[in-house]
Amino acid sequence: MSILVMKFGGTSVGSTQKILAAAEKAIREKEAGHQVVVTVSAMSGETDRLLNLANEIDPAGSPREKDMLASTGEQVSIALFSIAVQKLGYPAISFIAPQIDMKTDRAHQKARLKSIDGAKIQTALNEDKIVVIAGFQGVTDEGEITTLGRGGSDTTAVAIAAVLGAQCDIYTDVDGVYAADPRIVPKAKRIPVLSYEEMLEMASSGAKVLHTRSVQFAAKYNVPLQVRSSFDDKPGTMIIQEVKTMEQVVVSAITHSMKEAKVTLSGIADKPGTAATIFKFLAEKNINVDMIVQNVAEGDLADISFTVERTDVPYIKKVEMELRSLVDAKKLTYDDKIAKISAIGVGMRTHAGVAARMFDVLAAKGINILMISTSEIKISCVIEEAYTELAVRALCEEFGLEKGEGE
Amino acid sequence: MSILVMKFGGTSVGSTQKILAAAEKAIREKEAGHQVVVTVSAMSGETDRLLNLANEIDPAGSPREKDMLASTGEQVSIALFSIAVQKLGYPAISFIAPQIDMKTDRAHQKARLKSIDGAKIQTALNEDKIVVIAGFQGVTDEGEITTLGRGGSDTTAVAIAAVLGAQCDIYTDVDGVYAADPRIVPKAKRIPVLSYEEMLEMASSGAKVLHTRSVQFAAKYNVPLQVRSSFDDKPGTMIIQEVKTMEQVVVSAITHSMKEAKVTLSGIADKPGTAATIFKFLAEKNINVDMIVQNVAEGDLADISFTVERTDVPYIKKVEMELRSLVDAKKLTYDDKIAKISAIGVGMRTHAGVAARMFDVLAAKGINILMISTSEIKISCVIEEAYTELAVRALCEEFGLEKGEGE
Repeated sequence: MSILVMKFGGTSVGSTQKILAAAEKAIREKEAGHQVVVTVSAMSGETDRLLNLANEIDPAGSPREKDMLASTGEQVSIALFSIAVQKLGYPAISFIAPQIDMKTDRAHQKARLKSIDGAKIQTALNEDKIVVIAGFQGVTDEGEITTLGRGGSDTTAVAIAAVLGAQCDIYTDVDGVYAADPRIVPKAKRIPVLSYEEMLEMASSGAKVLHTRSVQFAAKYNVPLQVRSSFDDKPGTMIIQEVKTMEQVVVSAITHSMKEAKVTLSGIADKPGTAATIFKFLAEKNINVDMIVQNVAEGDLADISFTVERTDVPYIKKVEMELRSLVDAKKLTYDDKIAKISAIGVGMRTHAGVAARMFDVLAAKGINILMISTSEIKISCVIEEAYTELAVRALCEEFGLEKGEGE
Repeated sequence: MSILVMKFGGTSVGSTQKILAAAEKAIREKEAGHQVVVTVSAMSGETDRLLNLANEIDPAGSPREKDMLASTGEQVSIALFSIAVQKLGYPAISFIAPQIDMKTDRAHQKARLKSIDGAKIQTALNEDKIVVIAGFQGVTDEGEITTLGRGGSDTTAVAIAAVLGAQCDIYTDVDGVYAADPRIVPKAKRIPVLSYEEMLEMASSGAKVLHTRSVQFAAKYNVPLQVRSSFDDKPGTMIIQEVKTMEQVVVSAITHSMKEAKVTLSGIADKPGTAATIFKFLAEKNINVDMIVQNVAEGDLADISFTVERTDVPYIKKVEMELRSLVDAKKLTYDDKIAKISAIGVGMRTHAGVAARMFDVLAAKGINILMISTSEIKISCVIEEAYTELAVRALCEEFGLEKGEGE
């Protein structure tokens, strides 16, 4: 009998009515012949409610105690979900992390999964139960409660699927992965199938459907993932290993991110080792740099621009003088009114000229490209933030990513 | 170094402000030279909020899952309490039941404590930490989460004190145990010291300050208990083993209970074994009987009256016809407009005539006594409910239980 892991996010279990509706979905899969494992998040708003209580006392509360606190949100959800399944006439049992040895390292609030006792889950499944497991939480070898950080419930679900050799369906408030953000491109296509690599590039360049870590996990253990809606029964987006036919689509998706800021160091001496000095310094300060561009300005002086997360700008400001004196820079400027637009698709491997088409489209709309970076299956351009929507729409049109096209 | 267990109830940790105030109390005891263990209940209203969610789905939800659900309330409190202690500058660590092997039997929602791993608590105390332990919850040998039922956090606190050889202070929203309910007798005395037996009789005859089980536990392991206020620093009521001087007080307290109903079986044959038949039948139906009175009515026919919890009346009504036919009773009547008034004191052992004084006082106020029962240190009378306040006040006056008297 095949095993299906179903993951319901916070909005999908946001009320007792929604929990009952999700329980019905689980029962339908059971009746269709699967053994069913359910992983749930905390009811929407609950994790924030709990952490706000902690912040009222001390925003700098200890990570160990915050994990003790936040992990209760999922425990509430699994108990209610089990009661809902039982109410609908099927046996169910809930497990918190310690009960199935969901082991993690000791990094509170961002713990990494190490192992899961699949045998205990399998025993309950063989007793014909729907097994409901708390997402987001784990336990260390010493019995300490940990949490996995944002998006952790997805990772829990994928990890359980990996251990059980199961498919993993991620239920959410959207009905799949779209070729562009539907709030910007209402006509954007729903993508029926994607490779892990494409999904990873999308997640790390602005798509909010899945977190990078859960997709990496799925790719590593080859767990078939499906992103689908909690509120209807249509199939969603399958995320699987790359297959040959995927290459027929040149560009699968256009993503955008407005979470980055551009930092420019001007008037620095153009000599070997300067860039290395800068980025070693930033790495030591735990500031992640994404794109980098260097250009010679005048004489022997050069400019170096790079992008960082906007939330890191205050940290750079703190060390600005130190950084400038390190490379003898005349000036350091910030620009947080930028957007990163990316075109993603495994088809780029076999189709030439995608970058050129992208630049042409942006140029035709009068959009200035500030920075460019490419990978094997992605091209990213930094532009002025104000042009974000125009750029995304134009690129969707260019690459046939609107509904009714190329289907 | 002496160990002190401090237990804070739901109202004492009902907000983050109150949690900080309670944490300050714990730190003060630490600074006074104690090793401090804190046990907390769920924030006031939280357990009800959680169980209401379960009831929205299914009021008959499985006890296992309800325990999984309800036990989160205390977990939230211990995390917040630890963060509060840390914020105030002292090291603290919280433990849920599985982390200190707080073992119970498998009776969900009314589990009984079997053992606690005191060593882990002692280790944390020796590291100079304030140890914060979730009340109300436990874990079975199989790792299942259980709860101890109403008043369970008191039992947790007393059990930990027993294991550690500590005193146990129960912080609550009243500043001690009163000689009568202050809502009825505003002038009622606060009792400075009580014996376990007196407290037990009080708890089982209507006083709501402590639950019977926690007092039994304290008596069994000779744990000194103190009931005191969360909101001031005055000493409360000490509950300890009986000492000789306690006998100087004839009556320590007057309690009342309006939770009982009187059931009368009329016109039954007055032959040996009838009473046994009735009460065996009720015991089989799990209906607890408190007081029993039998009187011969006319000829060979007798009446039997007994009291039960009012909440059990519907169950008796269900089996009424069966019960009547079993002893061939003509009639079965209910009266739930009754109250049980009790006078309690270890001094009764050495002072004669207490019962007579009680009956005299009630007679003088024109209060009819419907039933009487006595124990070595208690006399209880059932009267009409309407006379409750009058009776309690008159008895307090008679036995010198008002403020300023006998002090």
